[in-house]
Amino acid sequence: MEFMTGVNQKEVKEISDLAVYLGEKVKVNGTIHTIRDMGTVVFVILRKREGLLQLVLDESVNKIDKHSLKEGAAIEAFGMVTENEKAPNGIEISMEEVIILSEPAEPMPVPINKWKMNIALETNLNLRPVTLRNIRERAKFRIQEAIVRGFRDFLYENGFTEIHTPKISSKGAEGGANIFKMDYFHKPAVLAQSPQFYKQMMVGIFDRVFETGPVFRAEKHNTKRHLNEYTSLDFEMGYIDGFEDLMAMETGVLQYIVALLKKEYSREVEILKIKLPNTERIPCVRFDEAKKLISEKYNRTIRNPYDLEPDEEVLIGQYFKEEFDADFVFVTHYPSKKRPFYAMDDPEDTTYTLSFDCLFHGMEITTGGQRIHDYHMLLEKIEKRGMTEEGMEHYLLAFKHGMPPHGGLGIGLERLTMRLVGEDNVRETTLFPRDLNRLEP
Amino acid sequence: MEFMTGVNQKEVKEISDLAVYLGEKVKVNGTIHTIRDMGTVVFVILRKREGLLQLVLDESVNKIDKHSLKEGAAIEAFGMVTENEKAPNGIEISMEEVIILSEPAEPMPVPINKWKMNIALETNLNLRPVTLRNIRERAKFRIQEAIVRGFRDFLYENGFTEIHTPKISSKGAEGGANIFKMDYFHKPAVLAQSPQFYKQMMVGIFDRVFETGPVFRAEKHNTKRHLNEYTSLDFEMGYIDGFEDLMAMETGVLQYIVALLKKEYSREVEILKIKLPNTERIPCVRFDEAKKLISEKYNRTIRNPYDLEPDEEVLIGQYFKEEFDADFVFVTHYPSKKRPFYAMDDPEDTTYTLSFDCLFHGMEITTGGQRIHDYHMLLEKIEKRGMTEEGMEHYLLAFKHGMPPHGGLGIGLERLTMRLVGEDNVRETTLFPRDLNRLEP
Repeated sequence: MEFMTGVNQKEVKEISDLAVYLGEKVKVNGTIHTIRDMGTVVFVILRKREGLLQLVLDESVNKIDKHSLKEGAAIEAFGMVTENEKAPNGIEISMEEVIILSEPAEPMPVPINKWKMNIALETNLNLRPVTLRNIRERAKFRIQEAIVRGFRDFLYENGFTEIHTPKISSKGAEGGANIFKMDYFHKPAVLAQSPQFYKQMMVGIFDRVFETGPVFRAEKHNTKRHLNEYTSLDFEMGYIDGFEDLMAMETGVLQYIVALLKKEYSREVEILKIKLPNTERIPCVRFDEAKKLISEKYNRTIRNPYDLEPDEEVLIGQYFKEEFDADFVFVTHYPSKKRPFYAMDDPEDTTYTLSFDCLFHGMEITTGGQRIHDYHMLLEKIEKRGMTEEGMEHYLLAFKHGMPPHGGLGIGLERLTMRLVGEDNVRETTLFPRDLNRLEP
Repeated sequence: MEFMTGVNQKEVKEISDLAVYLGEKVKVNGTIHTIRDMGTVVFVILRKREGLLQLVLDESVNKIDKHSLKEGAAIEAFGMVTENEKAPNGIEISMEEVIILSEPAEPMPVPINKWKMNIALETNLNLRPVTLRNIRERAKFRIQEAIVRGFRDFLYENGFTEIHTPKISSKGAEGGANIFKMDYFHKPAVLAQSPQFYKQMMVGIFDRVFETGPVFRAEKHNTKRHLNEYTSLDFEMGYIDGFEDLMAMETGVLQYIVALLKKEYSREVEILKIKLPNTERIPCVRFDEAKKLISEKYNRTIRNPYDLEPDEEVLIGQYFKEEFDADFVFVTHYPSKKRPFYAMDDPEDTTYTLSFDCLFHGMEITTGGQRIHDYHMLLEKIEKRGMTEEGMEHYLLAFKHGMPPHGGLGIGLERLTMRLVGEDNVRETTLFPRDLNRLEP
């Protein structure tokens, strides 16, 4: 009987292992990213998960046929580790033996081994399974990993429990027209616009919960910042003293992510030349005050006092960058009529809510706020909005039997990644984006 | 201007903070789980995220009206921390002041404060937003958190990158009838049965990837082990020497999860009286050999040599428990006709594949295997199966331009949780299950 006892230790080395093997012979593997043929000497650059590794083939020294090596082939190579300050990571391997593990059927349709591919976004997205092999392209998604990982790890440390809530339901959380509908065994169903109802219910169970998962919005927006499916980083916390607790927690999350990027993702931060944002102190400004400030400074008429247009968000970002060197801004007290029924109105002026958005370089990346926790107040608000309790029985059940004061927020992962890496289209920081026109790959 | 500078430090204490405050007065908050009125002394048991906390109200000493306290109310209390070996965690608080933060509108419909609620599963699921407040119910989902967290953390350590792939697509990965269909802006679309195609494509980019997210199966099974939406823990790894590398990696994952449960989730392990499974050595047995072994030992006729029925899985589990004290078993070399087109056939006998299932106490929790990585071999297999390349162009693109040898697996989170906590219905370990008849809550 054969037994599995744990991870198989491999003979092949990763890039970060090599420094200790200088002067020794090792095995490595990877995909041939580029071949630079200098005549008798050929440089074969391997693409590995940790970066690029230079192999040198000197045909006068050994009998490997350089024509047997193709870009895109997966190989295993054996040879001496030597220093070379011109090589990536200062190390190269003098190739003595090579085994071809697999070969491509056709050459690359786009120059993925160039530092910048210089191709149109549409081409990039159509050829995503190969364009992501470009070093800069893939680095963006390592940064994205750091964001999700930092979000989770910080919340674990702060007593949050991770939850997994259903994406198919009988009714949407926020209502409205932007819901994808489907048939569920001959019953009408919808895809979750957010885990809102579920995460609130779960506050009654774990006090503090979070979820990182897909959400679906059937919005007919075709802009640089909208996706019809995206990853939402949601948390919800009970026993808050006010909605400021939520902004404070998000500040902690952002600080943790920046620290994690510095500590474990410096390679990708370097590749993408990311200037890490300032998260030490994030200014908070009231919605109405923010509108006034930019109206005065940038000589702009306030057209609609109850809404914030995208170009106003940009100006708010600009204002706080100029005045306070701030990369993030919390805009607070959004008008009640622009927030969902479950938002807690400000008792001092019920035209406004105890809510906020977080802007990052002038774009909304987070929406959050305190929620109504009292059952009767919730019923009144539903009635006042002319809504029906139908389909919300389970949500209301949680409140009927008692809920602590609570609130939460949702962060759009792709938007936060986009701002962090300095892209201007959210599709650039989505592995396989879904928009009005794109359902593939 | 107000600034956020990080998490607000709270005056209220959590249960794990209290030991150092013995003899001192502190503030705590939580929901009233039970009230035990002994006459002049009233025990108020608070439910907090870390467990239960006993408050003592002596009406002869202070003027709090015991009738102002209701089960289900969220309160903040102030009082002296004292030792009491009969209280949960050996600590209680002599209540001097209390603030009611919120009150329930109605009493609980089921006895959530009993150790075991003794209610029917259907009732439990219908009232999920409140039944999960039961201490044992919620503990199951802390165990579930440990599984996902352990899966991710172990894979991060082993060079895997986390990915987020779309759940709405134009075509399903596995094909077949069990696909949920939907309308995507007047185009036909489907919900992802698995991230299979995407995670394979991503091997060409990061070598090793994983995803933890929802998958959707429109299967008309109504059994104790099927859900129509569940959380799949998927990984895929390149440069494998054989499919044994995948089982070895899963063994490492399971060992890590068990260690994490011991280290950080001992409270919940204790509440649920979980006997942690043996993961030190997991036996591997060929599919045909396993059928023969149980046929001989349990005197059972082999009806179908190409399929493993659920009761055969149970017997295999029983066999390896009896013979090797094994909780997990890898069953390898499943018949080719029972595996998808992308499965790598065993070159020594193409009737079988280089694939496996992992059984946990006689139930399949994982399916995995090596995949075909050669473009031409993949095309041949598609043709041989009478399938069409239509809709698979993007998947095939990755192979056309070169893919390393690779394989991967998917673990059903709810099933693994179910086996670990010793439940016999997968709905017990799903927060809000979706099955043929259940779309709510």
